[in-house]
Amino acid sequence: MDKVKVCMVGAAGKMGRRIICLLAESDKAELKGALEHSASSFLSMDAGEVAGCGKNGVSITSDLGTAVKGCDVIIDFTGCEPTMHALPGYVRFGVPAVIGSTGFTPEQTEKLKEASEKMPLLVSPNMSLGVNLTFKVLEMVAKAIGNTYDIEIVEAHHRLKKDAPSGTAMKMGEVVANATGRNIDKDGAFCRKGIIGERTDREIGMQTLRAGDIVGEHTVMFCGQGERIEITHRAHTRDTFAQGAISAAAWLKGKDKGLYNMYDVLGL
Amino acid sequence: MDKVKVCMVGAAGKMGRRIICLLAESDKAELKGALEHSASSFLSMDAGEVAGCGKNGVSITSDLGTAVKGCDVIIDFTGCEPTMHALPGYVRFGVPAVIGSTGFTPEQTEKLKEASEKMPLLVSPNMSLGVNLTFKVLEMVAKAIGNTYDIEIVEAHHRLKKDAPSGTAMKMGEVVANATGRNIDKDGAFCRKGIIGERTDREIGMQTLRAGDIVGEHTVMFCGQGERIEITHRAHTRDTFAQGAISAAAWLKGKDKGLYNMYDVLGL
Amino acid sequence: MDKVKVCMVGAAGKMGRRIICLLAESDKAELKGALEHSASSFLSMDAGEVAGCGKNGVSITSDLGTAVKGCDVIIDFTGCEPTMHALPGYVRFGVPAVIGSTGFTPEQTEKLKEASEKMPLLVSPNMSLGVNLTFKVLEMVAKAIGNTYDIEIVEAHHRLKKDAPSGTAMKMGEVVANATGRNIDKDGAFCRKGIIGERTDREIGMQTLRAGDIVGEHTVMFCGQGERIEITHRAHTRDTFAQGAISAAAWLKGKDKGLYNMYDVLGL
Amino acid sequence: MDKVKVCMVGAAGKMGRRIICLLAESDKAELKGALEHSASSFLSMDAGEVAGCGKNGVSITSDLGTAVKGCDVIIDFTGCEPTMHALPGYVRFGVPAVIGSTGFTPEQTEKLKEASEKMPLLVSPNMSLGVNLTFKVLEMVAKAIGNTYDIEIVEAHHRLKKDAPSGTAMKMGEVVANATGRNIDKDGAFCRKGIIGERTDREIGMQTLRAGDIVGEHTVMFCGQGERIEITHRAHTRDTFAQGAISAAAWLKGKDKGLYNMYDVLGL
Repeated sequence: MDKVKVCMVGAAGKMGRRIICLLAESDKAELKGALEHSASSFLSMDAGEVAGCGKNGVSITSDLGTAVKGCDVIIDFTGCEPTMHALPGYVRFGVPAVIGSTGFTPEQTEKLKEASEKMPLLVSPNMSLGVNLTFKVLEMVAKAIGNTYDIEIVEAHHRLKKDAPSGTAMKMGEVVANATGRNIDKDGAFCRKGIIGERTDREIGMQTLRAGDIVGEHTVMFCGQGERIEITHRAHTRDTFAQGAISAAAWLKGKDKGLYNMYDVLGL
Repeated sequence: MDKVKVCMVGAAGKMGRRIICLLAESDKAELKGALEHSASSFLSMDAGEVAGCGKNGVSITSDLGTAVKGCDVIIDFTGCEPTMHALPGYVRFGVPAVIGSTGFTPEQTEKLKEASEKMPLLVSPNMSLGVNLTFKVLEMVAKAIGNTYDIEIVEAHHRLKKDAPSGTAMKMGEVVANATGRNIDKDGAFCRKGIIGERTDREIGMQTLRAGDIVGEHTVMFCGQGERIEITHRAHTRDTFAQGAISAAAWLKGKDKGLYNMYDVLGL
Repeated sequence: MDKVKVCMVGAAGKMGRRIICLLAESDKAELKGALEHSASSFLSMDAGEVAGCGKNGVSITSDLGTAVKGCDVIIDFTGCEPTMHALPGYVRFGVPAVIGSTGFTPEQTEKLKEASEKMPLLVSPNMSLGVNLTFKVLEMVAKAIGNTYDIEIVEAHHRLKKDAPSGTAMKMGEVVANATGRNIDKDGAFCRKGIIGERTDREIGMQTLRAGDIVGEHTVMFCGQGERIEITHRAHTRDTFAQGAISAAAWLKGKDKGLYNMYDVLGL
Repeated sequence: MDKVKVCMVGAAGKMGRRIICLLAESDKAELKGALEHSASSFLSMDAGEVAGCGKNGVSITSDLGTAVKGCDVIIDFTGCEPTMHALPGYVRFGVPAVIGSTGFTPEQTEKLKEASEKMPLLVSPNMSLGVNLTFKVLEMVAKAIGNTYDIEIVEAHHRLKKDAPSGTAMKMGEVVANATGRNIDKDGAFCRKGIIGERTDREIGMQTLRAGDIVGEHTVMFCGQGERIEITHRAHTRDTFAQGAISAAAWLKGKDKGLYNMYDVLGL
């Protein structure tokens, strides 16, 4: 099977470099084009060499037309503003695009939606296949036994993380809360200290560990009388996001226009 | 809501006693009838007292008609032979029955099927809600990522268990193998020692721990580049089976004739 | 080797019955005497039958002299008051005693100490070998790396537990705090929610899960850059306390007078 | 406190670069000298720039005298042959050296020993503080309960690893075997499949998982009746070895001549 040909937008950025290196080892996709903004100091350089994993013969350009020539899919992790700026170009060339930028405003989201009426667009705030699949698993388990089994969530991240619980843990809490008719803000048990009394049926434990350089780990426990199920996701490195983007690109090739997310890639 | 009224067949047996004690604490079901064979030394005694959790006013009888009077559901963990012996009576009285006996021959299974054309019958070799739900979760995850992520299964049981891997681990292996077009007998990696070389894509690790009095724990790991998902089921006590039977009984009340299993109880 | 002969004080109590049943299966100790208070309705009955694990030929008596006759060690889980009441008798007969009662006042503790000047006495608020060994492990690890690795503690107990964190988790926190020059009450991070900022070096995470019928699980994590150590203790059943008492009894036989605890049994 | 001044031997190698980058962030040590062989293409270049983490003002040289000038400690991960070649120079300048090279022959080991009679030398095949500390923990636990609790070891590594179990798992097996009078080659239970019968007291389970890009995880379980202890070490990245070397260097500064290992650094 021919490899899917990828145009990397933001080729000299942190995620761009990592995706270019993983493409060099991939058996389902390969780099074909590499874009950077016109003030980049990496223009005309070999994208693989810039990424630090050896020459791959693809020059970094600031011209979108040149970059997407012969490409099946665009991958873009450049951030909201640069992505919105580039979007009309993506529509003009009609090359399917995987967007990993996060934090779009409602207006920007609306524009992404409009663009998707003219071309295939996959947008996801978290490109990890595992995290997205875990959300679906949690929904299934919570619907089946969430109202009779106790639900507890515990997450662990590195010592520098400033917020707690993590956004992913909160999303997991929402998923199980929605599936069982609860509200995670109201029913989350974030603090337990002293004489807290017996656990209520409705509460969802939300407990947080912070230590060392843990990339991100989440466990959701469903515990009944005599047994329990534990669903755990562990991120080892940020490659999980880069790999997810490559999987998304391979999946998006040749799809009809429309707005897709990682659930589509997972076939869920 | 009225509690579901249960007739316990094999009321003085190990599982019968435990179910009777759990019914005493249940808010969805209660004991109404208690059956033992005609040679039992517990006839006419109070079923709760025999079970060791206090009088409940239900006398143990050897007459099925007396035992099922006013009952919504029968629970029967007596074993294949006693269950097959009692089956015509269940059909005659038409009381829905939850059958936890295991090891039926194909002929016996056929007779259970015939009976289910006249009455509601729920039969499951493993009454644990969690184990059955875990099978479904594994199927979902394996279908989504099982062909690109490495699958490994590790189980732990008490020191007295004579076979390895456990039947439940083998069933989990079958579920993920079926979902990914493999064969667990052929693709299971049961032994790893020495220079085994790089892991193949197809193999499914099947590793076994035996220690102390562990009731039964199973973990299935789906591991890709940069992340992994772990699905763990832990049985704490045999109550998991008793509780599953009570849940099944509560669910079976008022159902149409037919043959059901635990997936139906879970709504899957 | 001859089995150690045990006199069970409080033979018809919950822990007494369980210890009697485990003694029936033990290869290092056996029941020889069984004591209950003079108003007990189980006097003169067979201790094994009362315990529910078959006759063992030992009658329950209310006379201490009769009960300890031929015994190497006493085990007493009757509670502070009954234990203090029986203590002068233990001294008089000079039979070494394992005391599992908890909650002694300073005055009572002083009397236990005085008694131990005349006879061998082993007193421990938690008879679990594993928990006591875990305390020692934590001390060792905390002394070696506790000031450069982040320390986090997470515990899980059943839904009915009213206090948080558990007494055992607090003790673990004290052990690592003492080993690293901190104070668990001051440095424990019991609640994490919202913008909590980067983790400090001194804080010790104390997070709590409550679910189902979990008997008691504790994990202490020491996490640095690039690695971590996790020390986990899981109680499966309350047998851990009964077995610990039997191990203590086997160890105490023939020891000199003095006050001992579980660290002595463990040889630490 | 003044930072310990480090001379990195093999400054342009994989581990050398990583240690140089971690030194740039360290508060206990800093780079002062950088050595490469005389044919290196990185001579005279800035060591930080070569490592990819920004200029640090230290030029890479091929002259040992220049490199160690003003240094408190040498770190050398260059491999057996280069290390043996450089050793006489280390002795001549008398700068304490941390040696992370592995696979020395008995003759080479003897020469290291001789050198250590003239200078402080720290040699360890595994620089991870956590792994070395775990060995000591296992020895302590095995001595205390290893003859009455069942011992099981399970390890997980990435899919490319060719041998099983890992060298670290085998070392852990040796530690617990030695502590309990067993032999891991004879008593290790490496394969469990089919009707294996009840577990023996002597066997030590050695089970192996291979999946994805797992850096290296080891769990040793000590399981009795009613409880268990699990000791887990997880390597997140290879930084664990680089950090261990830096800790060793900081510890070695100012020590007397002699042969040291990581247990000394840990104060065990």
